[in-house]
Amino acid sequence: MTLNKTMPNTQFLKACNLQTTDHTPIWLMRQAGRYMKEYQAVRKHVKFLDLCKNPELCAEVTLTAREKLSVDAAIIFSDILLIANTLGLEVVFKEPGGPSIINPVRSVKDIDLFKAPDVLNDLSYVFEALKITRKSLPTDISLIGFAGAPFTLACYIIEGGSSTNYNLTKQLMLGDKEFAHKLLTILTDITITYLNEQVKNGADTIQLFDSWVGILSSHNFKELVLPYLIKIRNSMDKSIPFIYFGNGASHLYTQIKNINATVYSIDWRMDLDTAWDILGHDTAIQGNLDPSILLTDFKTIKSEVELIFKLINFRPGFIFNLGHGILPKTPFDNVKYLVDLVHSISK
Amino acid sequence: MTLNKTMPNTQFLKACNLQTTDHTPIWLMRQAGRYMKEYQAVRKHVKFLDLCKNPELCAEVTLTAREKLSVDAAIIFSDILLIANTLGLEVVFKEPGGPSIINPVRSVKDIDLFKAPDVLNDLSYVFEALKITRKSLPTDISLIGFAGAPFTLACYIIEGGSSTNYNLTKQLMLGDKEFAHKLLTILTDITITYLNEQVKNGADTIQLFDSWVGILSSHNFKELVLPYLIKIRNSMDKSIPFIYFGNGASHLYTQIKNINATVYSIDWRMDLDTAWDILGHDTAIQGNLDPSILLTDFKTIKSEVELIFKLINFRPGFIFNLGHGILPKTPFDNVKYLVDLVHSISK
Repeated sequence: MTLNKTMPNTQFLKACNLQTTDHTPIWLMRQAGRYMKEYQAVRKHVKFLDLCKNPELCAEVTLTAREKLSVDAAIIFSDILLIANTLGLEVVFKEPGGPSIINPVRSVKDIDLFKAPDVLNDLSYVFEALKITRKSLPTDISLIGFAGAPFTLACYIIEGGSSTNYNLTKQLMLGDKEFAHKLLTILTDITITYLNEQVKNGADTIQLFDSWVGILSSHNFKELVLPYLIKIRNSMDKSIPFIYFGNGASHLYTQIKNINATVYSIDWRMDLDTAWDILGHDTAIQGNLDPSILLTDFKTIKSEVELIFKLINFRPGFIFNLGHGILPKTPFDNVKYLVDLVHSISK
Repeated sequence: MTLNKTMPNTQFLKACNLQTTDHTPIWLMRQAGRYMKEYQAVRKHVKFLDLCKNPELCAEVTLTAREKLSVDAAIIFSDILLIANTLGLEVVFKEPGGPSIINPVRSVKDIDLFKAPDVLNDLSYVFEALKITRKSLPTDISLIGFAGAPFTLACYIIEGGSSTNYNLTKQLMLGDKEFAHKLLTILTDITITYLNEQVKNGADTIQLFDSWVGILSSHNFKELVLPYLIKIRNSMDKSIPFIYFGNGASHLYTQIKNINATVYSIDWRMDLDTAWDILGHDTAIQGNLDPSILLTDFKTIKSEVELIFKLINFRPGFIFNLGHGILPKTPFDNVKYLVDLVHSISK
């Protein structure tokens, strides 16, 4: 069953495909998150991982955030690290700190201990959550599925959790390229299955989150990482918009454009003008407000949003988003103000 | 007394000034640090801040590292946060975590509580350390003085210590530009006095460390930060090489080149070719090996070093360094291997 075939052409999808839209579509990374009191209320009674594995609750959290903000797309509530379960790696959630891996992977020997992955079964709760969400979502609203990019997953799997500089990851991957390629190949293959199954279950768009790719030099990126991103991209149905988000990756864009993504999600460090110059003016771009701006006030938000609109000058193929996820301490009213402002300016 | 006037023209200074050299000069950020057993031995009996404030010990630590590694320049052992003392801010040292500020500065009111700075007196131990070091340093070796750049100092002073994303800094500085400019003006003025006094006491080169500038968008950098960097640069004697190190700043180089530094110290994210294209081929560059490479092995180090030499192709105006400081867990033998390798390849 490919639900997406019956999906309407949403404003968001039109922008992905460089078509003109009635308004500039907007959604926000981590739009369902700690800054929102409805989310906090759910989390009072449910642990993070239990929430992720409960399709009904995931759908509820996804839909509530979408509706409260009136954004143009919902992104399924989940976590990029859950995919590690299908390799037999145990994921735990620490507060603060976020998800981490009990048994980090640091050698070819560790990789040889992986269980045979069964993505369809082990991550069935994600596919179920997508189906439930799609049923309740207005037809003019898109539903985004996602995964972590292989290098970013490898960072967590090697370090065991988040790190300041991922120096251990670089030490092990650059010092032992057999290990690096073996790990990235496995992560790439399960990601391909995972993303395609998300599309089958209602995701009309896919976003690949490469949160830590920015720590690599461009020659290390080109050798170790880029081929796997291209492989994932080429394994996906070309009619489904494919968004690549490389965080802190300004220095990698001449390489990154070879992924041939439908949309590039850029952070605030990357100038919109520079991005279009490198990626080509016929490429859709998503971004790129600094999330810390949402910690300030309406006046500052307005001034930064106007600057973005001045740069995009209403060209088609732009999706408004942040340069990274909403920060936990962000006031909800600032987020809502941003969404309404983007809609009203662009109508 | 301007000791530098009598300084010989070291290989390092020649490279700064784009002259041909007998070999590619090399020094390493944090070359006197925790990875070195001689440094650990000193720190066993002396706390970090007590070491910084003891000119004889600072000189010893500076000289030992220089000599053990046979690098072409010494950098005075100190910490960028000590300058905060001259404003009446109390700096403490936490292990782990590094230096932090007891009384963070978060409003114009907090700034109004600063004591009148007396850089010459309050930081006399740094100037004394430079004088002692210069006396014992071989005449063919350079002595680098340094300071933190105003924005990076502001990050620490606002947050109270290091942070993952410096979101509070951005919130306060972007949301209240009067506060931002007031703080940056004060930090700029004391930095100018501080750096010029370091030159008077034996530093033949100055490096400005902008460790956190990379978190800013280019329009925020241009408005809030660049004018202060230019002011500092213009306040320095043009015969003294001025090195600007912007960490994670690949996206800012079209702005950064307006600083008109003698040398730009680039991190590993920034391609050497891209750097020269943006900064101009008549600009000296310092960098840019990823410090995590030094965690690997001789073979990997050699392959990465050869790649850098392939790119620079023995053009004048290149100083070998890391893209950031030596990591605490780095094996000493790897560091020594790197220095000897760079010297032997380039002789």
